This record gives sequence, structure tokens and C-alpha cells, in this order.
Amino acid sequence: MEVDGLPWYGENGGELFRLPAKLKDTYRMPVWELAQSPSGGRIRFRTNSTTLAIRLEYPEPPGMSNMHAFGQTGVDLYADGVYRGTAIAGRDAKAGATKEHVYYKQQPAALREITLYLPLYMGVKVQRIGLDPEARIERAKPFSVAKPLVFYGTSITQGGCASRSGMSYQAILGRTLNVDFVNLGFSGNGLGEPELARAVASIDAASFVMDFAQNNPTVESLTQAYGPFLEAIRAQHADTPILVITPIYSAREAWSRDPRLDGMRELIRQVAARRITAGDRHIEILEGTDLLGPSRGDGLVDGTHPNDLGFEWMAEGLAGRLAKMLGINMTR
Amino acid sequence: MEVDGLPWYGENGGELFRLPAKLKDTYRMPVWELAQSPSGGRIRFRTNSTTLAIRLEYPEPPGMSNMHAFGQTGVDLYADGVYRGTAIAGRDAKAGATKEHVYYKQQPAALREITLYLPLYMGVKVQRIGLDPEARIERAKPFSVAKPLVFYGTSITQGGCASRSGMSYQAILGRTLNVDFVNLGFSGNGLGEPELARAVASIDAASFVMDFAQNNPTVESLTQAYGPFLEAIRAQHADTPILVITPIYSAREAWSRDPRLDGMRELIRQVAARRITAGDRHIEILEGTDLLGPSRGDGLVDGTHPNDLGFEWMAEGLAGRLAKMLGINMTR
Repeated sequence: MEVDGLPWYGENGGELFRLPAKLKDTYRMPVWELAQSPSGGRIRFRTNSTTLAIRLEYPEPPGMSNMHAFGQTGVDLYADGVYRGTAIAGRDAKAGATKEHVYYKQQPAALREITLYLPLYMGVKVQRIGLDPEARIERAKPFSVAKPLVFYGTSITQGGCASRSGMSYQAILGRTLNVDFVNLGFSGNGLGEPELARAVASIDAASFVMDFAQNNPTVESLTQAYGPFLEAIRAQHADTPILVITPIYSAREAWSRDPRLDGMRELIRQVAARRITAGDRHIEILEGTDLLGPSRGDGLVDGTHPNDLGFEWMAEGLAGRLAKMLGINMTR
Repeated sequence: MEVDGLPWYGENGGELFRLPAKLKDTYRMPVWELAQSPSGGRIRFRTNSTTLAIRLEYPEPPGMSNMHAFGQTGVDLYADGVYRGTAIAGRDAKAGATKEHVYYKQQPAALREITLYLPLYMGVKVQRIGLDPEARIERAKPFSVAKPLVFYGTSITQGGCASRSGMSYQAILGRTLNVDFVNLGFSGNGLGEPELARAVASIDAASFVMDFAQNNPTVESLTQAYGPFLEAIRAQHADTPILVITPIYSAREAWSRDPRLDGMRELIRQVAARRITAGDRHIEILEGTDLLGPSRGDGLVDGTHPNDLGFEWMAEGLAGRLAKMLGINMTR
């Protein structure tokens, strides 16, 4: 079995954290707490088991107002690329208590590609995966690109408000392009701090996707962070494609232009354009409003976060661009 | 202001029930309880108010595992056809307590088309809608067809699991075609009982959409209900278009055919085909799997209910067919 999307999984001793535990004290407290949620983490393997079950330990019951139990805590099973079911935290979830879920049983003993998508917005311990005693376990099929796409950003990046873990925009994109990905979205906390730039830049990535802006209080604070964040990546990865995304549409923009969001969009364009002008051939700009713009308000819940329709639109828009940047043939 | 989608609103003394209170004792208890949730109900008007607020009383806090507070309890505002925001029940909601939400304020005093979509899965009392004291209030723009489309069915029909009340498939469809609708979906309880057939048949509808099957325990029980339900409608409405929908795809069908669902699909086809053969020129069959079939598993949450992506797909498929049946020009 392989664990994808969690670059520090081995170093962290098998804990499903999204950041390196040894640097815990260098991160702001909310960032480290959000790193407990293994959004983007996937367990992949092939098996001919006639049964698949899972034993999970969640620290607490679900409790968000804009994500239900499936969205906040669910572990989705996709088999052969198709959604099959979801394990979720119960109302009685607490540390020390376990929850078992049988995804399937008594199925024919055919080899299947298994992907388990880990929770978007709650920590979890995967205590056991249950298969037939005699089941074969083989490596999952390889990705079309060996290295992962690395996404840094906000709650939207983290997967809020998908209805389940297989419906974050990266998860949809990952299936569309057969690519691996790392989700470093931190709800309310995607500020672009130097310690996060170092974490992102330390990953051996196929591409970096910058999806942060909205969590910064002002255009000025984003200005302080954005250029240095890109420089930190470029210092380690001279030629790796970088895609910068400007903020997607927010429902309040149906009323009037939002100077803060517009300013952030302009800032991101400026920073990227300066790099392009200076000769960086591997950075591109994607307008967030091309992914989810004013004509696509139905793709938002709560005015700010995409719902599944919004994430589908984002994934569609990103798939074409990233396939081009990475040389992935989408006509296959 | 007009209240749409609740045919017994006047008769029920302004309560937002989906069935006539005077017949309460004729309905099974869970059906009557589900009728407290005003799914499909809309408050519509035009106003030039610079402010719009609402005061709501919810009986209890949100508490579903596959719908969050926005999906279960939200009252969505669309202005000029565009999503603006949502009022939701708080964790402290209880009978007698009120919740106020300001949708907008200090906007230009321009005339706007207001639609408030009432909650999908919880009862609510709308105690007050707040506008400027001097605001103009005018009738909402007329629908493209005067009478409503009437939907009868299950939890899926009721709106499970949309992320908010403006994202049930009927709500999306209503915006696409500019049509009025009545939602008589009853979660877990869309059995097709005679008393529900009478309620449905009593509505002066532009079209009847039959979206029930899955809640019946067996094909046999559906067989008992389905033909008589259609006859009850036809006895009152000789020429009104009826669209029967067979069950949409369920995630368990990714494993193997489901004899119960397949049997229900076949039964519905048979019942409708017999009517067509007998000369009924105003009944059509729509395969649920054309709306949400095996290639669209991403449109499901929890294996059974559509998420927003699934509802978007359902609405798209229904829009074309219903526009044709109702003579609505979609090229405008």
C-alpha cells in the first residue's frame, strides 16, 4: 500500500499530518492544527480482496456549519476510478473510540484499483484496513507524472466545501489527469508565511499551484508575502512549472467590485508578470474567475466556498491548463 | 409578496406546510412531519430596498449527517437570478428563539427581483422580512408558464443532498426555465400512497413529474402504487403532461446490477408504456440514468443522494425535456 499526498508521512512516523512534525514549533498554532486534517492524503493499492473494510479513530464528532459529516470527516472509496462509498465519523466520535466501516463484501475476487481519500477537515487515525486473509495486495497503477502537483492555499484549497473527500478540486483533477497531488490548503490561514513557503519549496514537485490570497487581511500583507513565496520556490526549483491562481469569484461581488479581491488579483498578476518579464519561462497565470466567475454563482455555498458544482468547474478549468503545462495528453 | 410552491399556504393560514393541514390525519405521521419542511417554497417580490433582512424561527438546531446547516436549514437569497447569500439555523435554535440575518444593506435603491428559497429539510417560521420603511414592493416577474410543475417523490426530490435550498434540482430548473414548481418529495417516504396521489392530483399543474420508486420496499409494493397514482392524476387532468422518471443510478450499482432498482425501472416503463399504448398522448418516460447514470458517480454523496453536481446534471437533463413538453423556448 502507498500513502500519497502526505510528503512527510514516513518522517512523521506514519501519522497523517500534512506538515513535518519536527518543524511543528515553527508553524503558527492554527496552521499546525489544520495540518492534522489529512486533506489530499490517499491510500492506494490494488487488491483482489472480496471484502474491504476500514477501522478509523476520529478525535471528535463532526461539527461544521458548512460541511456535513461526509464532507468534513469522510473517507471516500474509489475502486477502478469510480466512487463506491464513504466512511464517516459518528456523533459519538472521540479519541480512543474506533469506527468500523465495510465498504464492500462478497464481491468477485477481481483485481481492483483502490483509492481511499482521507478526510478534508478532521484528523483521523487509520488503524486497520480489512481485506480477505489471502487477498493479493499489489502496487497501485503509476501516475501519468511521477512527481506530485503541490497546491498551497486557503480553505478552498483544503477542500471547503466539498461534499466528500473525493470531490475537492484536486481530487477531481487527480482522477481526470491521473496525477498525484499534495494539498497544503489551510482554512483561514493561507497567508503565505515564510515557513510555509519553505515547506512547499522543500517538496520535489511536478508543478506548484499557488491558490492563496483571500486569507490575507489586506493587499499590502499579500504583497509582503507573495513575491517572496515564489522566490522561495524558484530558489529550489529553477524550471518547475508554477501556476498562480487569482481569487475566484465571491458572492458579494454580485453587488459591486471588491477592492480587496481586485487588488489581490492585480497584485498576483503583477508579481507573476514581473517574473515572466525577467525571463521565467515556467510560470503562468490563471484567472480564478475563469474557473468560477460571476456567471457561476450556483457553484458557491455560503457565498465564499465552492460546492461540488464549483469544484467540478475549478477542476475542469485547471485540468486543461495543467495538462498543457505538464505535457499530459488528455486525448487518451 | 407572493409565496410560491406551497399550494395550501393560504388555506393553512400562512403556515409553510407542504400539505393541507385539514387533511393532516389522513397522512402517515412521517409524511406530515416532513411536510413541515417547506422545500420548494419561495417568497418572491420586487423591491428597491437598499436593505434586505429576515427574521426566522427554527424549531431545533441543524443535525443531519449528509446535509450541513446551509443545506438542511438555509434560506437562500437570489437577487436578479443570482445567488447572494444564505440565512441558516444556529446551534442554539429552538422554538420561540429567533434568528435575524441581513442579506444586504446600503445597496443602491434599484428595483431587484427577489427570490427567497425556503429550507429543504427543516420547518421554519418567517416572522418578518426587513426592508427600508419607504421601499417599493412590487409583484415578482411572471413565470414563463402560469401554473407550477408538480414533483412527487423521495428524499432526492425533496432536495437531499443539495448544499443549499437554491440548489435542489427543481430550484435550478426553475431558474433555467423561469417556471414555478411544487416540491412534494418526502424523504424515505415517497411510497405513492393514495392520499398523496389525491394531494398531487388536486393541484392545478402545468405538468406532473413522478420521481418516486426507491422508497418502496419492493417492486411489488411499487406496482401496487404506481399505476393507481397515475390514474388519480389523469382522472383530474386528462391532458396535462406527465413525466415519469425511473430511478437514478446508485453507487452500489457500480458493483452489480440491482434487481430491485432494475425491476422498479422496468415497472415504471411498463406502466407508462401501457398508458401510451392506450392512447395517452401526454405522458413521457425519462430514464433516471440519463440524468445521473454510472458515468456520473461523482454526482453522488453517501452513495445514494445527489450532491450539487448531481443536481446540476439532473436539472440540465430535465430542462430540455420539460421545455419541450411545455412548449417553452429555451433559445431565448
